[in-house]
Parts: sequence; C-alpha cells; structure tokens
Amino acid sequence: MRNVVAIVEYDGILFHGMQVQPGLRTVQGELEQALFLVTQERIRIAAAGRTDAGVHASGQVVSFKTQSYLPATTLLRALNAALPDDIVVKHCADVAAEFHARFSAQSREYRYTILNREAPTALARSFVHHYRKLLNLEEMQKASESLIGTHDFASFARIDPDVSNTIRTVFRAEWCRDGSLIHFDIVANAFLPQMVRGLVGTLIWVGTGKIDACRFQDIMHARDRRLAGPTVPAKGLCFVKANY
Amino acid sequence: MRNVVAIVEYDGILFHGMQVQPGLRTVQGELEQALFLVTQERIRIAAAGRTDAGVHASGQVVSFKTQSYLPATTLLRALNAALPDDIVVKHCADVAAEFHARFSAQSREYRYTILNREAPTALARSFVHHYRKLLNLEEMQKASESLIGTHDFASFARIDPDVSNTIRTVFRAEWCRDGSLIHFDIVANAFLPQMVRGLVGTLIWVGTGKIDACRFQDIMHARDRRLAGPTVPAKGLCFVKANY
Repeated sequence: MRNVVAIVEYDGILFHGMQVQPGLRTVQGELEQALFLVTQERIRIAAAGRTDAGVHASGQVVSFKTQSYLPATTLLRALNAALPDDIVVKHCADVAAEFHARFSAQSREYRYTILNREAPTALARSFVHHYRKLLNLEEMQKASESLIGTHDFASFARIDPDVSNTIRTVFRAEWCRDGSLIHFDIVANAFLPQMVRGLVGTLIWVGTGKIDACRFQDIMHARDRRLAGPTVPAKGLCFVKANY
Repeated sequence: MRNVVAIVEYDGILFHGMQVQPGLRTVQGELEQALFLVTQERIRIAAAGRTDAGVHASGQVVSFKTQSYLPATTLLRALNAALPDDIVVKHCADVAAEFHARFSAQSREYRYTILNREAPTALARSFVHHYRKLLNLEEMQKASESLIGTHDFASFARIDPDVSNTIRTVFRAEWCRDGSLIHFDIVANAFLPQMVRGLVGTLIWVGTGKIDACRFQDIMHARDRRLAGPTVPAKGLCFVKANY
C-alpha cells in the first residue's frame, strides 16, 4: 500500500474541528469524503494536530494509505476539485511506509493573532482576535519565557477526562508585532486541548498589567484552570506546521 | 456644519458595490444608516472611489457634513458599534469645510491580487483570483509601462452610457511577487468602471504569452472593449487609498 502525506490549509470557521464526529462537519470528514470520491476507497487519515472548532490551519499535515495509482500531482488536483472551497490540499507526496502524520511529528507550531487597536477589521475579521486596550508586549514576552521547557500545563487547558498526562515541552514561545497586529508563535512537542488559547488569555492579563510575569509563573505551577485567564476566541488561532 | 473625513475598510463580498442603490445592500447605504443611528441626521456621504459589487477596500475615503457634537474618536467608536462586521471605520477626523472625499482626491490606488500556483487557497479565497498557469511577470511589467501617462482606456472598461470621457491618467502600474501571490498596484487620477479588472485580464494574456507587450499597446490604442481580455473577478480587487 502507498503511504501519502498532504499539507492542508483550511478556514476553520464552518468546521466542528479537525477530528471526525458523527453528524457534524469536520475537516477529517470532508477530507475522507473527498478521498472516497477520488479513489473509491474508504480511507482513514491521520493528522498532526487535532484543531478545535473554529481553529484555522495553514499547514496541517495529514497522512493516509491508499491503493490508488494516481500520481501525487493528479491526486492533489483531484482532491482540490472534490473538496469544498474552505479546505485546500497545498502539497501532496508519496512518503515512506513508516511515516505517520501524528505519531512521527516531533513538534507542532501554532500562531495566535491579536488585532490591538481601537478599530476592528473587516477584511481579516475571521482570522484575528480584536483587543482594544494597548498591550505591553515586552511584559508578555518576559512571562512567556517561563513556558520554555517541560512543564505541567493543566492551568491553561480545557479539562479533558481523556487526557491524563498534562505535561508538555515547549520549545519556543515568541510575541512579535506587525503594525497593529500581534502574533504569538508557539512550538511544542504537543498541545493540550485549548492550551494555546488559555495561554494567550492569561498572557493578555500580563499585557494589561492585571498580573505580572511572576504571578503568571505561579499560575502555571498551580495546575489549576480556575486561576488562569479566559480562553480567547478560536478564530485567532492557526495551526502553522508540524516538524518531523 | 462640521466636515468629517473617515477611512473605511470593507469586505466587498456581500455588497452590491459602494454606491447606494434602492433595495440593495451597499457600503454607502450601510454607512448612512449607521450615521443616522449615531447622529439622528439624514447624512449623505461622498466617497473617493465607486467600487463595484464584490470589490474590497482597505482605505476607502469618505466625507460628510454633520451637526453632531461627538468628538471624532467617539464618532469612530459609535459608528463601528452601529456598523455590520464587514465594514469598519479605521480613522475619523474633522477636516476643513472645503474638503470633499471625491472631488478633492488627486489620485486613487487599487491593488489586484492573483494567486499563481496549482493549489487554490482556503484562508485567502475571498481576496485573491486563483490562476494556475505560471505567469511571466517580466512581460506583464513591460506591457504595463505603456499604461503610464494620459490615454483613452475604453478598451479595458465596461461600456457605461454615463461615462462619456474615457481618458484617464495613470501615474503608476507595477507588478510584484510575494511567494505565490502576485500583486498589481495601479495609481491613476480616476478609473473607468471595471477598468482595473479589464487591464488585469488583458495583462494575464501577456503573462501567458497569448499576446505580447506590443499587441497590448495596440489593444489600448484601438479603444475597442471586444479586443481586450476578460474582466477578472471582483474579489481580487481592493481599493487601497486616495491621495489629496
């Protein structure tokens, strides 16, 4: 059986997340439906990141086994013809049999984008979280340094009975400004459900001066979701890439 | 009476253009409705550019007279609260009585964006024209040089019985590449209806080798819409700014 890897971009707004759920529109469901239309096989895909409802992806990685003889470039074109316009396969290639989009991934990278000015945006309204009060990026960056390394991130994630181990390793956590836009780029071996959005909500507290970098670190060490800030909206979040 | 100028951003997709039309959703209609909600005055706005249905704006300029005592910053916030989320007032300021967004404008600037690669885009699908065949940007730039100056642009515009003078002056016409995206930036004293989209459709012919830069110039001089290329989709076009 061939093993194929694909890089997938999607607008999360009309999806109930990545993972297939009976009766709901999901990215996995649409991709598997398109694969069926193209190959006539019932294919199950694996994905690097289980993005939540409303979360976007510019570089989601999926892999799947197929018996199709279609060359990768034809597969790409056929899948894009079969897919709705809010999912696109950007690249498609044959890959070694042992490659698995989820289990082979060494790390995942997300970007959260805040529009930090008085006026909202019409053109990018589906892709940014609008926050009016001016944020102190230097303080937010200082607090973010404490995320680097292996920690228990239970304070920031949605409580999920299926996730028993809440320890993850963060490799990079950086804020940058681009005009009125503020980006938070975070790379970790893996993420807990809603972890990035809980982190950003708490780091916004730091940016407004509600808490300082020390208190942020205390909240992390407390492993108590009730102490941290709100979960910011899904639409500001984008799965950027997975590293292998 | 106060005279106020506002910079407006909108996602053109759900509008029947800028200019008010009875029974149709237009940018002008929504802005005048929001002004009525905020000031209780029946205000008529002037706009720098009459964008067509589906065309976006990142920096449309409008001006209007009002008797409201609201400071400009309060007006901005109140208008944004009253407007639907696909129109945003980015800036708002008092301006000299003789300023008129349309008549005072010296030039207008538009950007047309093409995604030039095999795969379409999900995230930017409302803002780019997807064109698969690889375009030769150098040839397109060469042909665009002939646009600079004062010419009759009838070959590229929608025939409009209300527009008797089809002569316009182009100050700048430049193509640039940003990864798979290609931008066409054009500045002119004013534009004919669908002129930018007709120009881009014909310049795509140049980019594929269907015609050369000389033939492009001949088409311009012929002043015959039937000789030029297709009108490319509105969603790739954005009104960027007006200069005063």
